[in-house]
Amino acid sequence: MPEFMDVHHNMVGITKEDLKAAHAADLAVQGEEGVNFKQAWADPESGVVYCLSEAPDADAVKRVHERTGHPADEIHPVPLVV
Amino acid sequence: MPEFMDVHHNMVGITKEDLKAAHAADLAVQGEEGVNFKQAWADPESGVVYCLSEAPDADAVKRVHERTGHPADEIHPVPLVV
Repeated sequence: MPEFMDVHHNMVGITKEDLKAAHAADLAVQGEEGVNFKQAWADPESGVVYCLSEAPDADAVKRVHERTGHPADEIHPVPLVV
Repeated sequence: MPEFMDVHHNMVGITKEDLKAAHAADLAVQGEEGVNFKQAWADPESGVVYCLSEAPDADAVKRVHERTGHPADEIHPVPLVV
């Protein structure tokens, strides 16, 4: 299944607990969209968060993040991985 | 060791071979800067490339990418990971 990296730019001050809660919310609904969120990384100072996922398409990633209340600012297919 | 996500924005049309070569070049010098590039993801269409690394600091990541001729446009510490 294709992989995607999505980016959130507005999470200055995000805490470990915030990130865990957001990730758990995504995991709870991801199955209904055929998405698998693999890992997420956050920089509380700049507010940027990166989420790596497998999904049928970018729209499915978009829908999960919208349903859980933290829409992504960017969603990129990442067909090349090393 | 702290983790970093760095981002390159100017690699439209990057191929699998290009990404492999760039990553190999980084791996060849990373030890001298105490950096460990763990994985890289690329979207040839938008030209964005994400590189995940462990490093003493952001400057070390910056130096490796500059020495190998593909400076990063952004380098973020990512202290929070899930």
